[in-house]
Amino acid sequence: MTETFRLERLPGWGVTAAAGFLAGATYAGIKGEHAAFKLDLGLLYSEAQADSAGTFTTSRIPGQPVKVSRARIGRPVRAVIVNSGCANVATGEEGLHNALEMTQLAAQKLGIDPMEVLVASTGVIGTQLPMDRIRAAVPAIRLTREGGADFAKAITTTDSRTKEVAFEVWTGAGSFRIGGAAKGAGMIHPNMATMLAFITTDLAVEPAFLQGCLREAVAVTFNQIDVDGDMSTSDTVFLLANGRSGLGPVGPDNPLAGAFRAALGEVCLCLAKEIVRDGEGAQHLIQVTVRGATSLAQARQASRAVASSVSLKAAIHGRDPNWGRVVAALGASGADVDEGRLVIRLGEFTLFQEGRPVPFDREAARRYLALAEVEITVDLNLGPYQATAWSSDLTEEYVRLNSVYTT
Amino acid sequence: MTETFRLERLPGWGVTAAAGFLAGATYAGIKGEHAAFKLDLGLLYSEAQADSAGTFTTSRIPGQPVKVSRARIGRPVRAVIVNSGCANVATGEEGLHNALEMTQLAAQKLGIDPMEVLVASTGVIGTQLPMDRIRAAVPAIRLTREGGADFAKAITTTDSRTKEVAFEVWTGAGSFRIGGAAKGAGMIHPNMATMLAFITTDLAVEPAFLQGCLREAVAVTFNQIDVDGDMSTSDTVFLLANGRSGLGPVGPDNPLAGAFRAALGEVCLCLAKEIVRDGEGAQHLIQVTVRGATSLAQARQASRAVASSVSLKAAIHGRDPNWGRVVAALGASGADVDEGRLVIRLGEFTLFQEGRPVPFDREAARRYLALAEVEITVDLNLGPYQATAWSSDLTEEYVRLNSVYTT
Repeated sequence: MTETFRLERLPGWGVTAAAGFLAGATYAGIKGEHAAFKLDLGLLYSEAQADSAGTFTTSRIPGQPVKVSRARIGRPVRAVIVNSGCANVATGEEGLHNALEMTQLAAQKLGIDPMEVLVASTGVIGTQLPMDRIRAAVPAIRLTREGGADFAKAITTTDSRTKEVAFEVWTGAGSFRIGGAAKGAGMIHPNMATMLAFITTDLAVEPAFLQGCLREAVAVTFNQIDVDGDMSTSDTVFLLANGRSGLGPVGPDNPLAGAFRAALGEVCLCLAKEIVRDGEGAQHLIQVTVRGATSLAQARQASRAVASSVSLKAAIHGRDPNWGRVVAALGASGADVDEGRLVIRLGEFTLFQEGRPVPFDREAARRYLALAEVEITVDLNLGPYQATAWSSDLTEEYVRLNSVYTT
Repeated sequence: MTETFRLERLPGWGVTAAAGFLAGATYAGIKGEHAAFKLDLGLLYSEAQADSAGTFTTSRIPGQPVKVSRARIGRPVRAVIVNSGCANVATGEEGLHNALEMTQLAAQKLGIDPMEVLVASTGVIGTQLPMDRIRAAVPAIRLTREGGADFAKAITTTDSRTKEVAFEVWTGAGSFRIGGAAKGAGMIHPNMATMLAFITTDLAVEPAFLQGCLREAVAVTFNQIDVDGDMSTSDTVFLLANGRSGLGPVGPDNPLAGAFRAALGEVCLCLAKEIVRDGEGAQHLIQVTVRGATSLAQARQASRAVASSVSLKAAIHGRDPNWGRVVAALGASGADVDEGRLVIRLGEFTLFQEGRPVPFDREAARRYLALAEVEITVDLNLGPYQATAWSSDLTEEYVRLNSVYTT
């Protein structure tokens, strides 16, 4: 039996929407004195022990915080400490020690066990964290129910804005909340490139189910977005469930399982699309759906390949309905394709069908490409599987931003 | 026993350097009346039957000319007809018929069997060839020994210049020639994206050995270059050997085998690097060598992954020694990496070693990055395998060019 449910968006809320979560942030000066006084050190705290789930970069050179947090995920946690400005990657023993010390500093401040603290870092690779500044800054963080917005600011790097979302989930059994914050604007690609996301809920969820639901949600959202094809060393999604709503614990057979899955999926989708919309230099959100694939893996791979095509992204920036680049990306994706069955659509325009280009109103298509969100639909007509991927267009501004980032 | 040999560059020569090859080109108006009167239809002819070898795109949606030529390669051929301006891809039965007709038109002009003609096309995807114009134009092509330069021009699209190379190969047994022409500036990626290359030699070479040598040479040259990560539907490399030098036939055990392999490798390398140098908007040639890999496949994959990193390409454009992006690309490449053994160098600068960033003179590194050709060397220190890949930097100009190409 599945409960019916309804999602109510909670504007202005993120990681502290759910009961029992507090957050805050401060300026530690991690990028150096010359950096603007941007918040760069955030802390998220759960008043009750929370079950945790996480997904991480598959990079063979993961950041030090990834190594520390990966070892702790799945156990009950109380807090997450995170900084921007320095990714703490390729930093050797000293970097690993620093990541551990960050969890100790948070634990000291909060009076909890360091093993109950997760850590994440984002920013430049290959520099050491300025630990003296972090030691001085952690005690200054003020944790409040309203601190989610500051936390969301503290995790940003080249992001032009913060990314937060929260819902109240109304069910017959009562309501729970789920919300989150994310960062990411460049180095975004399938497999979660420089992307951090922190999701909290006051529903109680069984740990294995929590991890399973997160993995599922990430597969169709964060792992299906692309800004520039790069996977980062630091990608991390944390999900904390503290049970403060009084509902649960929810497992796969619980009537609330469907509502939780749907709400978590919606949080991940909103944050993932926000990351793409805020892609470095981006002017368009490109949504690519591949239908009729012979396997789910091929549907995902093909949709990502089309969405990630650098020349297609540049064409869309130029409002050029150059669907040949869809053909090129699709052909190269490795998915089974039969030219005779293939259908390619741009919004409402059918561009290719029955093995042949279809004449279309090029001027109308160019007007369509002026919209902020554009849809490309590919029907392979070979099987029952489908997937969607999202990307941003490629602009001169992306190049400018990425030519001058570190030095 | 291996003969010693010496390569002498023949400046200004390409596909007609080798004895018995003639070429020419004309303006057919394939892109329409409004296009500048750029040569767009080329013909290459061998006075004697030539053994042929070829490698093609692995796209699941190959161009019609790829389908036609793939079926003929390996047999003796006499001619190659090629056009730019229209790739004849995703054009259905009509497009396939047109590709076949192109070989018939060439055969009629030359008085040979259509089965002895190969065909290639490059340009926009999804439009039909203007066959009336091609029918009118083929007879107008004048074949000469000096026509290689016009042929090289006729195959270009967004290329800013032609790409030709030729060598006289001096051996104890006498000399032979080998030369070629290529096109390609965008949609260039491992696995030969929109890239055409035509290579001719007057050495006689056994067909199976010819194909084997070409495959080997392409693997370490054309398949190791990247401009924008796209693999095209039309990538083709043809190699014709007509025996007119009087040397050969050369098989694997012939004393001339080494000289042929080396000369073919050099022709492919020169053309591949020329393509990258002429990458759309490119200002730098980036050479990435990965050493110490646990397998050849991993060495190739890792070197391509680093060379293809969009954010690294943008950083190099900005003369930013942001080696963290090397770490990110390497980590994501799937190759075995041990952070503690990894060494990363930029030119003479060691940037990362023994698990830690190495302090370096950032200003001197920025001056190094002002050079037209920059080298990144990664030593994984895990095994005996190495590979090199080449790419161009990513510039605002690339985006501009790719925003306005078709319409």
